[in-house]
Amino acid sequence: MSAINEKPELHVVAVGNAIVDVIANSDDAFLKKHDIAKGGMTLIDEPRATAIYADMAAGIENSGGSAANTVACIASFGGRGGYIGKVADDDLGRIFAHDLKSLGIAFDATPMSGGPSTARCLINVTKDAQRSMATFLGAAGHVGPDDVSEDLVAAAAITYLEGYLFEQPVARDAFAKAGDIARAAGRKLAITLSDGFVVDRNRDALLEFIPQHVDILFANQVEAEMLFGVKAEALDDAARKLCPLTAITMSEKGSRLVTRDGPSVAVPAVPPAQLVDTTGAGDAYAAGVLFGLASGRDLETAGRLGSLAASEVISHFGARPQKDLKTLAEANGLL
Amino acid sequence: MSAINEKPELHVVAVGNAIVDVIANSDDAFLKKHDIAKGGMTLIDEPRATAIYADMAAGIENSGGSAANTVACIASFGGRGGYIGKVADDDLGRIFAHDLKSLGIAFDATPMSGGPSTARCLINVTKDAQRSMATFLGAAGHVGPDDVSEDLVAAAAITYLEGYLFEQPVARDAFAKAGDIARAAGRKLAITLSDGFVVDRNRDALLEFIPQHVDILFANQVEAEMLFGVKAEALDDAARKLCPLTAITMSEKGSRLVTRDGPSVAVPAVPPAQLVDTTGAGDAYAAGVLFGLASGRDLETAGRLGSLAASEVISHFGARPQKDLKTLAEANGLL
Repeated sequence: MSAINEKPELHVVAVGNAIVDVIANSDDAFLKKHDIAKGGMTLIDEPRATAIYADMAAGIENSGGSAANTVACIASFGGRGGYIGKVADDDLGRIFAHDLKSLGIAFDATPMSGGPSTARCLINVTKDAQRSMATFLGAAGHVGPDDVSEDLVAAAAITYLEGYLFEQPVARDAFAKAGDIARAAGRKLAITLSDGFVVDRNRDALLEFIPQHVDILFANQVEAEMLFGVKAEALDDAARKLCPLTAITMSEKGSRLVTRDGPSVAVPAVPPAQLVDTTGAGDAYAAGVLFGLASGRDLETAGRLGSLAASEVISHFGARPQKDLKTLAEANGLL
Repeated sequence: MSAINEKPELHVVAVGNAIVDVIANSDDAFLKKHDIAKGGMTLIDEPRATAIYADMAAGIENSGGSAANTVACIASFGGRGGYIGKVADDDLGRIFAHDLKSLGIAFDATPMSGGPSTARCLINVTKDAQRSMATFLGAAGHVGPDDVSEDLVAAAAITYLEGYLFEQPVARDAFAKAGDIARAAGRKLAITLSDGFVVDRNRDALLEFIPQHVDILFANQVEAEMLFGVKAEALDDAARKLCPLTAITMSEKGSRLVTRDGPSVAVPAVPPAQLVDTTGAGDAYAAGVLFGLASGRDLETAGRLGSLAASEVISHFGARPQKDLKTLAEANGLL
């Protein structure tokens, strides 16, 4: 990957599912009754969302969405971020927009009226600290090419695409448009695979999309193995062929930054003060890497910023950072 | 106070402001800028709510409302509760209703349409752990006599009124109706003064309403002194004249249960495992006392259930219990 040498107005613009999380305590019987995959993410329609919510325990609500969590971390690093996503004209949509704007993130989408309501992710937390997600995509899945602002994408060093959205044909068109704008403006495009099921259901399309558009690919070990169809050692070679830079995360074993042009960089994980909730670890890791690269740091520093952000986010409930990541990174000599 | 000797279907029905809390970190400059009383509760109109929210940090949302918190604790004690309050037909209203119903609390209010939106309490938490509340009452303030279900009040051992609502003339009519139904059904009526400003602005009306309707009065020391116009020692005599039973709370000094017919009972506070957030202490204390009395326990046990519930609630963020109060009370030999 070549350096980003023009000074962009924004570090990262993220495109993703604009989702409000609803979090409540639950048990295995509940997951079984509602056919929710334990520890995973299940897409549900509105009637199922209504039925599950009616049966869920009392909960708390906060803004989520994978790429939105990432850009929230970018802001916490002191970076300038933007967000492209779709909410409805309802309370949850207003909460989602508020929570991004309050972080100084550019987010100007006009809410959808008369269509589906704002997306919600019903998160049932079992006593073993596993979080099982059932997501009603609602308005979020309607991100299309019209939502991709040329000004925003052209102003950002990196545009970061959430793999979950790759499931929606109209969003895939939006991704291609973002890729074209980024390329024309001399910017970079990044994508995360998000979840094994995304790879499983869209492998061929991803293998076509990535070499055409993507400069930076994020995947965990399982997703990478599914995408490339090879295991451990052969992974790096396959990744080099597909994409200039691939970041492969391996939970507590850290990550590998695999470049086409140079040696791979192994990045250790940062053990959290306490492990409370792993949700958002990948989102935070991506933020560190993206902020590092977008602000001109070297690969290893970028990776270590990613490990640091992930460590902060898994030390408490909720996928957005509670400590200031800039302060934390400075204290660790990374900024 | 005579014993509650018929077996009621419900232990407690609460009438209150149906509010969703929005909680975010803040600082003193923010409070000053928006003229929010530190540590207190300020009533605001919708334009101010919009302006404050737009300026607030990203936050989390959960159901609140003082009397609703109390009835949530009643449910946690294993009690049967009901709730009367007003929400709008919007996301926050659905969240509020969900969170009560999911606890098994009877709540059947038809949401208001076309009027103000569901009430929200904007809670700004400063670094010194103080929570400063700015409340837009919206639909909540529209509780009127039509909302007071005769079946619900007659079915409950005790109907518990939230003093904040005493500010609204139409709610005051609802309170009087609840008092009449409770009396006719041989049930008890309880009220909490909620806040010094409620007493300050409605002292004469309270001094008229209480002897006419109320069997159990909840007040903290400051509110009680404001209501009775006397200090410490003289308080008990004044309370005895006004109401059969008065529970006076004194933070970490515990509480006094002052009865017209017998000696006052001093109840020690239960020190929390850790003091995190005092919001909801009074709501939880009232729940313990009400559940104790409604389930036929003696005064001292009722008071100790109150102290125990308050201790649980102040040991974490949020005004609703996170541990099962029934289990906790059993472990402490109180149930």
